[in-house]
Amino acid sequence: MSTEPSTDYPTIRLLPKAEARAIRHGFPWVYCDELVMDRRTKALAPGTLAVLEDAERRPLGLAAVNPLSRIVARVIDRDPEAVVDQAWFAARIGAALALRERLYDAPFYRLAHAEADGLPGVVIDRFGAAAVVQPNAAWAESRLEALVAALVEVTGVETVVKNGSGRVRGLEGLPEETLMLQGALEGPVPVPMNGATYMADLTGGQKTGLFYDQRPNHAFAAGLAKGGRVLDVFSHVGGFALAALAAGAESALAVDGSEPALALAEAGAEASGLAGRFATRKGDAFDTLAALGAEGAQFELVVCDPPAFAPSKSALDAGLRAYERVARLAAGLVAPGGYLVLCSCSHAADLAKFRAASARGIGKAGRRGQILYTGFAGPDHPVLPHLAESGYLKALAFRLTE
Amino acid sequence: MSTEPSTDYPTIRLLPKAEARAIRHGFPWVYCDELVMDRRTKALAPGTLAVLEDAERRPLGLAAVNPLSRIVARVIDRDPEAVVDQAWFAARIGAALALRERLYDAPFYRLAHAEADGLPGVVIDRFGAAAVVQPNAAWAESRLEALVAALVEVTGVETVVKNGSGRVRGLEGLPEETLMLQGALEGPVPVPMNGATYMADLTGGQKTGLFYDQRPNHAFAAGLAKGGRVLDVFSHVGGFALAALAAGAESALAVDGSEPALALAEAGAEASGLAGRFATRKGDAFDTLAALGAEGAQFELVVCDPPAFAPSKSALDAGLRAYERVARLAAGLVAPGGYLVLCSCSHAADLAKFRAASARGIGKAGRRGQILYTGFAGPDHPVLPHLAESGYLKALAFRLTE
Repeated sequence: MSTEPSTDYPTIRLLPKAEARAIRHGFPWVYCDELVMDRRTKALAPGTLAVLEDAERRPLGLAAVNPLSRIVARVIDRDPEAVVDQAWFAARIGAALALRERLYDAPFYRLAHAEADGLPGVVIDRFGAAAVVQPNAAWAESRLEALVAALVEVTGVETVVKNGSGRVRGLEGLPEETLMLQGALEGPVPVPMNGATYMADLTGGQKTGLFYDQRPNHAFAAGLAKGGRVLDVFSHVGGFALAALAAGAESALAVDGSEPALALAEAGAEASGLAGRFATRKGDAFDTLAALGAEGAQFELVVCDPPAFAPSKSALDAGLRAYERVARLAAGLVAPGGYLVLCSCSHAADLAKFRAASARGIGKAGRRGQILYTGFAGPDHPVLPHLAESGYLKALAFRLTE
Repeated sequence: MSTEPSTDYPTIRLLPKAEARAIRHGFPWVYCDELVMDRRTKALAPGTLAVLEDAERRPLGLAAVNPLSRIVARVIDRDPEAVVDQAWFAARIGAALALRERLYDAPFYRLAHAEADGLPGVVIDRFGAAAVVQPNAAWAESRLEALVAALVEVTGVETVVKNGSGRVRGLEGLPEETLMLQGALEGPVPVPMNGATYMADLTGGQKTGLFYDQRPNHAFAAGLAKGGRVLDVFSHVGGFALAALAAGAESALAVDGSEPALALAEAGAEASGLAGRFATRKGDAFDTLAALGAEGAQFELVVCDPPAFAPSKSALDAGLRAYERVARLAAGLVAPGGYLVLCSCSHAADLAKFRAASARGIGKAGRRGQILYTGFAGPDHPVLPHLAESGYLKALAFRLTE
């Protein structure tokens, strides 16, 4: 599958109406209706590198082309003659690593976050001596060997997993597959974060095995939990619950529909020495919230971190109703003066819409609240200024004063 | 000036077009074009409490009226028969205190943040055994005695300063004055925050003496500064600079136009044991940024936290140009791979506009960056969901990759 590096690149050209200025200022994407789609361009194999020119044939940089994708080209280097080989990947990964080493004491983080780290479509999560690579764009898929060699060279990781699952790969016309590219894994990997130890399943879990993006939001919520009872709904491997227990919560109950996720959460609680204060309950989140309400259960902190209810614009209205319903059911379980943390990872539901839906739900539960905190994905998930509107993860912490 | 508590309240009424539903759901403000402004209502003394009714004469709650203000009424209690006496203030301040005691280990924080803490227009900052009260609404000004008695009762503070400066009081028709209401102060108060000690001048400084709102943003920026040279422009008493030094920055230079602010910054550095790595430079921020550029100075972290350049909608365009200029000048001083933190406390410049202006400035300096972090005011500055759009403070942390 490897492609020999070369600078003998074909040329692609923007239509006159396209925003060449934005690309000159760092916007990395060309949409299919902005490019001259002649027969030659349409025939380029997905992942081909090409010199991107403006309508006046001035070169703008080197782009990765995928005629199958709505994002038909992604600028990967300002230099139209860049050679994309192992050294090129090593430079990008090295710059990404320098930031993470400044931010974190231990090598557990998102190492590369796609466009913002100069690796369009590529996600790399690091778990100590192991890394999970998601080459979610054709250009990276076809250069995976050089990418992985650079990753090993720069970080010294011994184990590399290719995670080829997820919706995005379909948009790029890439197959779903998860492979062990290097080394071996024996069971889940322990991950120290916010004072707890999480267990991450790098080959069979959701996404890359752990959601590093919530780290600052876990930390903020944990600070509210001291001495209190915590309910963590859509808990996955116990992200909020274990951080809260490590910060001194009295007890935590994790609710999730996935038995394997709850087993990992229990293993994490065990590894953290917190198992005595931790319980799980398998079930549909809405049903379980309603059942807990019927039981008269109360918690000083309730956290809901659901999957994306509004993954696309067409799903927005239904998604916002689902966020409102989560907020309503969850608010009813918050003890007087307690805290409610609501999260959304929906691109389509922006902060204002998500906040309004959450406030409506809280109001319908007959409660009122202050917003204490608005959080986003952590700094190992940087964004380009031009793409900052698309910040997908939002976390709101409310205190319910009535 | 004290008003005898009583429930013999006059009545004010919403116009049919007014959004009674929003008020029922917790929106606390009535604008002057939403209220029946008959002769009787116009004649109410600023600060009078009145029962607010909807257009069908159903009571909505107890409101503080100020016919001089564009916000002609502020709902202060859902109970139209509430008695606003010392006990009432003590309940509100007690609820506010419970949150801060959960959030912070030491009694240094914004204790009451106006509407969101159920005290419309009232700000109280706490500095250990001292507190600064800003009664920026007529209803609170005329009940200051009960408010202060409750404050002392609930928190045990020994010293209370009334700070009556600022634009907002003018809108309410209140005079400017700063008074010692209780106790005494001998010089600035030392404030422990983010590992440093700040010196706050509670009677002669800017606002209440210290900007607690930046605490989480100070902390994030400090985490980027380790081992590096830091430039803190518009430094006031050294908020970003001292936190960065405490977190291990090699050196920090604070720039401000105010000699007294820089003297407090130097005293803070001394009190923190950081004076050897700290320097100040008095001057206009734009001039100093340009001069440092001409000198070829470089820093691993540059922070700019200017006053509100866009305090109102009419000042928005000029304000955004000023933010862009700050970003351009500051970006030129960031060492390769270094960090740039830009702040705005302008209501009118929302996050998207401020981010775009900052990105334009960085681009005009010939630099490119990732956004690592978007921060707001800390959790001791809660907001009502209905007023969350008005979150005034924004902090953006960029890493300049090129």
